Amino acid sequence: MTDPAFSVNVEIRFSHTDPAGIVYYPHYFDLIHGGMEDWFTHALGVDYPDFVLRQRHGFPTVHAECDFMAPSRMGDRLTLTFLIEKIGRTALTYIVVGHAHSKIRLRARFSIVLIHLDHGKPMAIPDDLHARFVAYQEATRDWHLATAEAPGA
Amino acid sequence: MTDPAFSVNVEIRFSHTDPAGIVYYPHYFDLIHGGMEDWFTHALGVDYPDFVLRQRHGFPTVHAECDFMAPSRMGDRLTLTFLIEKIGRTALTYIVVGHAHSKIRLRARFSIVLIHLDHGKPMAIPDDLHARFVAYQEATRDWHLATAEAPGA
Amino acid sequence: MTDPAFSVNVEIRFSHTDPAGIVYYPHYFDLIHGGMEDWFTHALGVDYPDFVLRQRHGFPTVHAECDFMAPSRMGDRLTLTFLIEKIGRTALTYIVVGHAHSKIRLRARFSIVLIHLDHGKPMAIPDDLHARFVAYQEATRDWHLATAEAPGA
Amino acid sequence: MTDPAFSVNVEIRFSHTDPAGIVYYPHYFDLIHGGMEDWFTHALGVDYPDFVLRQRHGFPTVHAECDFMAPSRMGDRLTLTFLIEKIGRTALTYIVVGHAHSKIRLRARFSIVLIHLDHGKPMAIPDDLHARFVAYQEATRDWHLATAEAPGA
Repeated sequence: MTDPAFSVNVEIRFSHTDPAGIVYYPHYFDLIHGGMEDWFTHALGVDYPDFVLRQRHGFPTVHAECDFMAPSRMGDRLTLTFLIEKIGRTALTYIVVGHAHSKIRLRARFSIVLIHLDHGKPMAIPDDLHARFVAYQEATRDWHLATAEAPGA
Repeated sequence: MTDPAFSVNVEIRFSHTDPAGIVYYPHYFDLIHGGMEDWFTHALGVDYPDFVLRQRHGFPTVHAECDFMAPSRMGDRLTLTFLIEKIGRTALTYIVVGHAHSKIRLRARFSIVLIHLDHGKPMAIPDDLHARFVAYQEATRDWHLATAEAPGA
Repeated sequence: MTDPAFSVNVEIRFSHTDPAGIVYYPHYFDLIHGGMEDWFTHALGVDYPDFVLRQRHGFPTVHAECDFMAPSRMGDRLTLTFLIEKIGRTALTYIVVGHAHSKIRLRARFSIVLIHLDHGKPMAIPDDLHARFVAYQEATRDWHLATAEAPGA
Repeated sequence: MTDPAFSVNVEIRFSHTDPAGIVYYPHYFDLIHGGMEDWFTHALGVDYPDFVLRQRHGFPTVHAECDFMAPSRMGDRLTLTFLIEKIGRTALTYIVVGHAHSKIRLRARFSIVLIHLDHGKPMAIPDDLHARFVAYQEATRDWHLATAEAPGA
């Protein structure tokens, strides 16, 4: 059975790690942003580069939070799984679970707001995109970590 | 009257900004970490490089959260003010208020845990350091944004 | 026919690009370093994380140079191909050709020196590793861009 | 006597350093770019943020090279001194000498080309800016490291 939740695998690189040999935490937010771009492009049907560069939309982050349960080191492969918590009129709240070997390493929550780059103001999420978010949320409602081990395992 | 709260001014650079012309949010966490190093070194009496490199301690971040109220652009100067929320046995929870021209642009909360780099496990904050945290918390208990405008203004 | 030269494909992300919409050039060096780690691990038989973390070796860069022929934008996929120019007693000089759609976008040269992390001093490249470098250099001596289009195309 | 060459002091941060405890080299290019922005703004009379954001010009880097003579660690303060090597019709070649305690740690050379962001094509450097480059080059022609120790010492 295919996991309905979208996941990406990210390699922890030399450059992500600090003098203690573990990931310097701001890099997690950068890795997650890259995964979010793939989630939009490959699972939500929104070509992220086209969405920004040609449609001139943006989804700036207005809230970010993350619990870091266990450190990661160079050579680790972290799986980031994307879930939707709440769909608002102009905003989306999504959850990212970072895991490796069936253990959670981080759990993050983000709120992003749709804007148009011409004026930078919030705008209503179009019906079509709203429907895609709802469908994804429905399909992944029962996701829990055990399910996540399928991809990339 | 001197502001008892420690602040640093950070310049928003070309490299911090994205195709929409505003700061890509993970850079804020990096800028705040640099400010935290200065806070430890210049206000709390803990030489941060010495603390890590010679004493082989670390303060990994186990929780980070931030509300981004208003965007910043290249050329902006952001003031980051550091406050203490809670002092635990092994952990410290601190607040960072990012502001410019008397307006708050971001408000962040971090929990960091003291470890020794030899084993990576949490350890009790030494009495001396604990006392410095308490003194700083006391001295800045009444800080509010108006006070912050003094430095760098 | 398989291309004897090792290549990685890297996605240009939102975070790599600047207010002009093109890659901020220091990110190229970071992307190339990640590709170099993969080249060592997957083509040269040196598990890079193990090499650094357990064998406590390093290959600090003592010279870096790059010509940027054409810009890249978010959504572009860049192929980085690794070649060896010169094998010294303690140092390796390698070339990276970055290309997309059969056109060269960047060409870089790096010199790295083998050190042991315990003392940070240059040391002779072990015979086994030296032989792997020689074999790779021989196998890829005739590489030119046309060949590169095979992988990932 | 004032040093005619513009220098900035940069602090080496936790985030700049790697598992070997030394600066991960791509960060030097980022630190130098920030210094270059200050050089334009404070010494060459070109307000860099205004130049990009309002005048919509850019100076993309078409060539970068650097020799890394000695490593830097967290807590080090590096002085970056900016010099002009060659002034072309559309391009500028500048030199950066990074030093600490009268010892050179890195020496870099960059070529940047003036473009307009509307079309991304090279354009002639305006006479006024050309004259500022010439004046700076003249004033700093005899700069050598000993001179550099004045600022920040």
